[in-house]
Amino acid sequence: MAILADLPRNAAGIETAVGVLQQRFGPRFGTGQALREQHGHTTTWLRNQPPDAVVFPETCEEVQEIVRVCATHHVPVIPFGTGTSLEGHVNAPAGGISVDMSRMTRILAVHQEDMDVVVEPGVTRKALNTHLRDTGLFFPIDPGADASLGGMAATNASGTCAVRYGTMKDNVLALKAVMPSGEVMVTAARARKTSAGYDLTRLMVGSEGTLGLITELTLRLQGIPEAASAATCSFPSVQAACDAVIATVQYGLPVARIELLDALTVKAVNAYSRLSLPETPLLLLEFHGTQAGVTEQAEVFGEIAGDAGGTGFTFTTREEERTALWQARHDAYWASLGLRPGAKGISTDVCVPVSRLADCVVAAQEKAAEMGFVAPVVGHVGDGNFHVLLLIDMEDAAEVARAEHYVGWLNDLAIGMGGTCTGEHGIGQGKAAYLERELGPEAMAVMRAIKRGIDPGNIFNPGKVGLG
Amino acid sequence: MAILADLPRNAAGIETAVGVLQQRFGPRFGTGQALREQHGHTTTWLRNQPPDAVVFPETCEEVQEIVRVCATHHVPVIPFGTGTSLEGHVNAPAGGISVDMSRMTRILAVHQEDMDVVVEPGVTRKALNTHLRDTGLFFPIDPGADASLGGMAATNASGTCAVRYGTMKDNVLALKAVMPSGEVMVTAARARKTSAGYDLTRLMVGSEGTLGLITELTLRLQGIPEAASAATCSFPSVQAACDAVIATVQYGLPVARIELLDALTVKAVNAYSRLSLPETPLLLLEFHGTQAGVTEQAEVFGEIAGDAGGTGFTFTTREEERTALWQARHDAYWASLGLRPGAKGISTDVCVPVSRLADCVVAAQEKAAEMGFVAPVVGHVGDGNFHVLLLIDMEDAAEVARAEHYVGWLNDLAIGMGGTCTGEHGIGQGKAAYLERELGPEAMAVMRAIKRGIDPGNIFNPGKVGLG
Repeated sequence: MAILADLPRNAAGIETAVGVLQQRFGPRFGTGQALREQHGHTTTWLRNQPPDAVVFPETCEEVQEIVRVCATHHVPVIPFGTGTSLEGHVNAPAGGISVDMSRMTRILAVHQEDMDVVVEPGVTRKALNTHLRDTGLFFPIDPGADASLGGMAATNASGTCAVRYGTMKDNVLALKAVMPSGEVMVTAARARKTSAGYDLTRLMVGSEGTLGLITELTLRLQGIPEAASAATCSFPSVQAACDAVIATVQYGLPVARIELLDALTVKAVNAYSRLSLPETPLLLLEFHGTQAGVTEQAEVFGEIAGDAGGTGFTFTTREEERTALWQARHDAYWASLGLRPGAKGISTDVCVPVSRLADCVVAAQEKAAEMGFVAPVVGHVGDGNFHVLLLIDMEDAAEVARAEHYVGWLNDLAIGMGGTCTGEHGIGQGKAAYLERELGPEAMAVMRAIKRGIDPGNIFNPGKVGLG
Repeated sequence: MAILADLPRNAAGIETAVGVLQQRFGPRFGTGQALREQHGHTTTWLRNQPPDAVVFPETCEEVQEIVRVCATHHVPVIPFGTGTSLEGHVNAPAGGISVDMSRMTRILAVHQEDMDVVVEPGVTRKALNTHLRDTGLFFPIDPGADASLGGMAATNASGTCAVRYGTMKDNVLALKAVMPSGEVMVTAARARKTSAGYDLTRLMVGSEGTLGLITELTLRLQGIPEAASAATCSFPSVQAACDAVIATVQYGLPVARIELLDALTVKAVNAYSRLSLPETPLLLLEFHGTQAGVTEQAEVFGEIAGDAGGTGFTFTTREEERTALWQARHDAYWASLGLRPGAKGISTDVCVPVSRLADCVVAAQEKAAEMGFVAPVVGHVGDGNFHVLLLIDMEDAAEVARAEHYVGWLNDLAIGMGGTCTGEHGIGQGKAAYLERELGPEAMAVMRAIKRGIDPGNIFNPGKVGLG
């Protein structure tokens, strides 16, 4: 794939840095092929471009040492969390050192009264929520994978709960990062609100490791709600389902989750989980609040859904029944793979204004059918964000090329509707071609000026975010 | 005041630019002293540093023309909204051209289904909400003053509703800005969520006009809630009130507003509005939601407040009674000025983790008393943000110097508690000395690198954000 050309390698510098770091980190440094490939990429369809070595720091000071060695010898530094990103963020197109944060897993402070927590970047979201179990608090961002919080911050992860609780942008209060200078930057105080200077926190969140390496995060937490309710409803068309979504959000119902499964996904789930849902578009919702509140909210949604043509509205506040109602969503990915056994799923991501969501989803379905793809759709529809899962035979080069064409077509469609080429997966390498089409030349010039100002040697994750 | 030294002036360049712009803009260009002083500053205690001229563009293209003339001749460009900022954001320490956006007041699009609106920067928040009257939607950020939306974005305004709806950071979806290059930058698509590249939207929000001049904003709107309730409760101490705040937020009650008035403010309000509230700390709350929801929420708060030692809990869902209950808050500023007739109020702003709020407020009260100041306190306490209103005789230089000392002491106290020197008023000139104390040298180095990369000639609002 053209977008995955290798970049020029500084072979001599890399050799020197590898020698220095090997000496320094011993057993916490590796150059084995399997290790390197695993750190190049595991979860995308993009070509693997392994780093030259992997190092496992345990402290911020060690990260500073690594960065200084790499800066001295002009060697790329590629941060690595759990490797669950989808757009090639951890590939090493110019070689270099992958910095694996999986040993930095301390939870440094839980501030219950302030509802925040200070963590090292290798802590995963599930590990954090396990740790918080007895506090009455939880961290709400759920991108599906049990990703590391550092990686989630670096890529601005979000997922099913974003409609209620926001994305990582909204939930990182402050962070520390080792910058290309080797110095540690503190982006903000721990206060919940600040107007103190440029928003360095949000500049770093979503910068995909191109500006610095996150070594500490202060995260907002939420109180575990007293009660939750779940609801599902089938719709005759994607348009009808989207109309219900728009009406629900406009009504001001504080949905915690509102997910769309298209008819093909429902069919897959029926087969996979032996359910008998009507094979039409399905909305699944969750409400968080007081006992009376979540019942009332679900009932109001039922009325809205009925007005939009929905049928089979069901809701419950009981935990085991909630899990059963949401079974279809939890199984969607694996069930969808079952639609074409042996195929690999390529999950592509766009986000449009909600008013254009039905048009965009229907056009995406029609184009996929026209091109002969099996391509179920799931969406975080409260935000206008959806994923097409292309089921592809990765051994068939022509099919892969057609899939690449489809992804490009879908991105251009979303951009043309006032949307973005990525609601949550990020740019990485896979979306590099679309960023300028979306934002235009001046935004790119400004991003390049920022990158150059902070990382003049371009050693932090080169070849990502479309910045070269 | 030392922090308001003039910066070097490019007198020849300014003279040339004034000539060129006068010729071009004729009656929409002025150099009269009153006009210039009014654009230097109106609402702060900081020394007035008027610009050399004021220009009133009507289109983005005209803003580009102005910026190009100023860039060519190395002349400062100072964006001006309504002049209601408090920290010297619109002063012109190096002279230059004030660009008054008050003629760019078109509302370009209301997207009801998407719950967003596209506006020019001169639209004020009240004008926007008047325009939205019949749509069922509203823009929730309320900083008190009827500020322009461009100014609110540039300074990251927030106010009483931030605890529920966030700050400008959370409510600007995208913006356009004329950059120092003279080109227009588009920061993001209109989708509600994006992971497309560096977060240029949030970099511009809060950048105080130092990186570019905002010419268009896409703002998130909220559905007008079906119902609202208001509640008030008195507490024996600031600590008891803060305990109730913490418990309320931890419970997950979705408060729309939660404001603290200290005993001195309550005393002022009693005198001003002939009320008879107990002269102890008072919390005022507002809840937005369904009819059942807002009643339940107010009642739950009543229980929480009682547990924390609160007395005189009152709540209502009726509009006229809500207004009466909140009378004390609406009158707080003018009532407080009545505590010392003839004095000017200096409102200073800090924000700390909520767990430290009571300590910080009590220390601020004690220090003010010790220094002989009349200094009522109001707080957006759900966020840990509060303001001390120092009532100062501005003719008494020694008293002004002591006030300056107090402000410095309070900032250092907040920073020492893990807080920030500004929760919502911004850095401008007044807080320039504290930013590095709060964030350290690397954050300053990164901010300077960003500023230099985007505005190498330092023509956009020089002397602000502590960046020189």
